[in-house]
Amino acid sequence: MTTLLLASASPARLATLRSAGIEPQVQVSSVDEPALLDQAAAAAAAAGTGPVPAAEQVLLLARAKARDVRATARTAADLVLGCDSMLELDDGTGPTVVGKPADAAEAAARWRAMRGRTGVLHTGHWLIGTGTDEVGATSSTVVHFADLTDAEIDAYVATGEPLHVAGAFTVDGLGGPFVTGIEGDHHGVVGLSLPLLRDLLGQVGVTVPELWSTTALTAGR
Amino acid sequence: MTTLLLASASPARLATLRSAGIEPQVQVSSVDEPALLDQAAAAAAAAGTGPVPAAEQVLLLARAKARDVRATARTAADLVLGCDSMLELDDGTGPTVVGKPADAAEAAARWRAMRGRTGVLHTGHWLIGTGTDEVGATSSTVVHFADLTDAEIDAYVATGEPLHVAGAFTVDGLGGPFVTGIEGDHHGVVGLSLPLLRDLLGQVGVTVPELWSTTALTAGR
Repeated sequence: MTTLLLASASPARLATLRSAGIEPQVQVSSVDEPALLDQAAAAAAAAGTGPVPAAEQVLLLARAKARDVRATARTAADLVLGCDSMLELDDGTGPTVVGKPADAAEAAARWRAMRGRTGVLHTGHWLIGTGTDEVGATSSTVVHFADLTDAEIDAYVATGEPLHVAGAFTVDGLGGPFVTGIEGDHHGVVGLSLPLLRDLLGQVGVTVPELWSTTALTAGR
Repeated sequence: MTTLLLASASPARLATLRSAGIEPQVQVSSVDEPALLDQAAAAAAAAGTGPVPAAEQVLLLARAKARDVRATARTAADLVLGCDSMLELDDGTGPTVVGKPADAAEAAARWRAMRGRTGVLHTGHWLIGTGTDEVGATSSTVVHFADLTDAEIDAYVATGEPLHVAGAFTVDGLGGPFVTGIEGDHHGVVGLSLPLLRDLLGQVGVTVPELWSTTALTAGR
């Protein structure tokens, strides 16, 4: 069996891998994410290339997390995977990139702005193999938000769930009924695209079945 | 809190509701599904209207399950929900509707036919309210299958998972990496569309937050 070290604190990412029969080790990186994004923005400004696209920002952070954890790994693992997610919304004034809301008021305001609209959830993935191989890509999935009533928004925000997640929504939790549909990979919206992981694994010479845990292999019989 | 009785034996449907904070009661219907579909096909043939579309077949079965369970309910519940799913594939000779594979050989043959192709997963929903209100609709989601190698198909079939599910694939289990993307609601592919349930609830005067269990409401804080 090939072992995987997940460079992320996200319970949703861990649950996604587990649902697919993969039992990773977990080590959270100590990357200063805001500082990295500031550097990238400054470099782009100096080069006159305009704002860094969300799809690049998440890839940059995923790479930094994976490299940091590979360099400091406390356990031996064949592969290290870093991920990062952001929601890009067009609120009518142009694309805005959003992370977790600061508080309940911001979560409610976000939902009032995004209900009935469409966003793009970007998740960057960076996979480091056993040698010096490293590969990365971003999964971008269109998300259609239901036209929630004010009462639904208030009830949803009161559960606390929207405060813990990028974009103030989930598709795999209480927020499930509030996303009418997606175009792309559902798991990418949750924070880790399984079909994209399959592609990246292929690029470093590993297949998905090599990652299946013994428990997973007996559960389906 | 409003209570829901789920007229289905599917662990995936139960898990979908639970992930969204809804803790239903469960009672499996005793509907003779093949007989019902035969009747519908005979009626369509007599009327000269051609084969019954998959989207209608699943709605018909969902309705029969919900009505059967409402009539025989062993517990008092405000609402009864029936669901049924089928995968429609175009294998080049026209649309074919498939349920669970009979055995491992059939599951492998299906995957060799559907890899790299696209299917439509139809899930019928029928909701009966406290009075005589009943409403139903079908969720139809396009599913893109990855171009699996023969070795991946053999490994996946050997897990046993494809034998238990309509269409011989899951998106919420080991099969997750083998679906490259969808267009529509992910939960509808799993067997119960949460946004469609929200619509149907609205038609009988109930909102999603009224179904949230007390456990769900405290977990997110």
